[in-house]
Amino acid sequence: MHIEPKPGRIFIGRFECDDDLLESLTSFCKKENIRLGTFNVLGAVKSAKLGYYDQKNKEYSGCVDLDKKLEIASCMGNVSLKDGEIMVHAHIVLADFEGKAYGGHLMPGTKVFAAEFHVQELVGKELKRGKEKKTGLPLWLE
Amino acid sequence: MHIEPKPGRIFIGRFECDDDLLESLTSFCKKENIRLGTFNVLGAVKSAKLGYYDQKNKEYSGCVDLDKKLEIASCMGNVSLKDGEIMVHAHIVLADFEGKAYGGHLMPGTKVFAAEFHVQELVGKELKRGKEKKTGLPLWLE
Amino acid sequence: MHIEPKPGRIFIGRFECDDDLLESLTSFCKKENIRLGTFNVLGAVKSAKLGYYDQKNKEYSGCVDLDKKLEIASCMGNVSLKDGEIMVHAHIVLADFEGKAYGGHLMPGTKVFAAEFHVQELVGKELKRGKEKKTGLPLWLE
Repeated sequence: MHIEPKPGRIFIGRFECDDDLLESLTSFCKKENIRLGTFNVLGAVKSAKLGYYDQKNKEYSGCVDLDKKLEIASCMGNVSLKDGEIMVHAHIVLADFEGKAYGGHLMPGTKVFAAEFHVQELVGKELKRGKEKKTGLPLWLE
Repeated sequence: MHIEPKPGRIFIGRFECDDDLLESLTSFCKKENIRLGTFNVLGAVKSAKLGYYDQKNKEYSGCVDLDKKLEIASCMGNVSLKDGEIMVHAHIVLADFEGKAYGGHLMPGTKVFAAEFHVQELVGKELKRGKEKKTGLPLWLE
Repeated sequence: MHIEPKPGRIFIGRFECDDDLLESLTSFCKKENIRLGTFNVLGAVKSAKLGYYDQKNKEYSGCVDLDKKLEIASCMGNVSLKDGEIMVHAHIVLADFEGKAYGGHLMPGTKVFAAEFHVQELVGKELKRGKEKKTGLPLWLE
């Protein structure tokens, strides 16, 4: 399934040191009423919390806590609706001081050191997440 | 070399569980006649096949088969023409349940668990790939 | 803080084998007078130089030299102003022949094998970097 939205507003800015990355992204989108969009972020974090979906048992049971300073090598995702609320879905790649890379689903608990974001709002038909049977994930339904 | 295209259509959607990621991207672009563009994808895969170009011997001889469930931490690329056909060029970063990251050139054989894509079509002069002498790669020629 | 710019020109193209990746990005933006924007790059490098910010001592003291051929699994960043000059800020994820991923802040000294870029210029209020007290980093100031 897919939709063909039009471009909306563009935002570029940064979050503050000690912000929670996922919560900052979410509250920014809620404040600006960005109901559909894509974004990316680069910067660094003081620590990170990553999640992993257990495809067999159909739950987000995996979690990796990285209690160290890391560069945000990549962070990208989208904004859509779930249960009538604006929801940010973000995946992230982090790198430590030795260059080793880590990746996963961005979870609350990832603490910003510096984070520069670019958000492209999209305007059109709404994308709503609901439980998709085959995967158990909250995916966009028709 | 570069061109200065204009923005075309925007697509946001998802592929289905068990789709082949690269083939889905390619057939989507062919169906929508997206001849130039950029895109990104996030989600998860059941398994992945990554390729590596041997810069010395000038061939895609490297291959890493990841026979496990992985998050798509990042996937990005572009759409252009090769031999008159629409061709998707995608690189991907994957992460396993322990947070370990893998990366490479996305190859056919990467099986989608869930995949959310964003495609920005570009409109203008066509970019055509042809064998570039110095690298041996199918790059955009003037 | 954030601004709400409008979309400007779009560029898609490639750098040449043996170019320095960060210097090529920077000189491209300077030549085209791209004062604000976002971009991504995929391709491969002959070698890479990555930097890491020491959050405690507030300096870019970390450095990883990867003296091997690598795929650019992801490279993304933004363009803004620092000391009146156009400055490119890029983070990168690289992958070696075994699929192992590395990440960090892109430094001069990363040698292109092939590099396909997409730049989205943004137009509006200028974003100027200046020393931010809490982090010591050259961040966008109000």
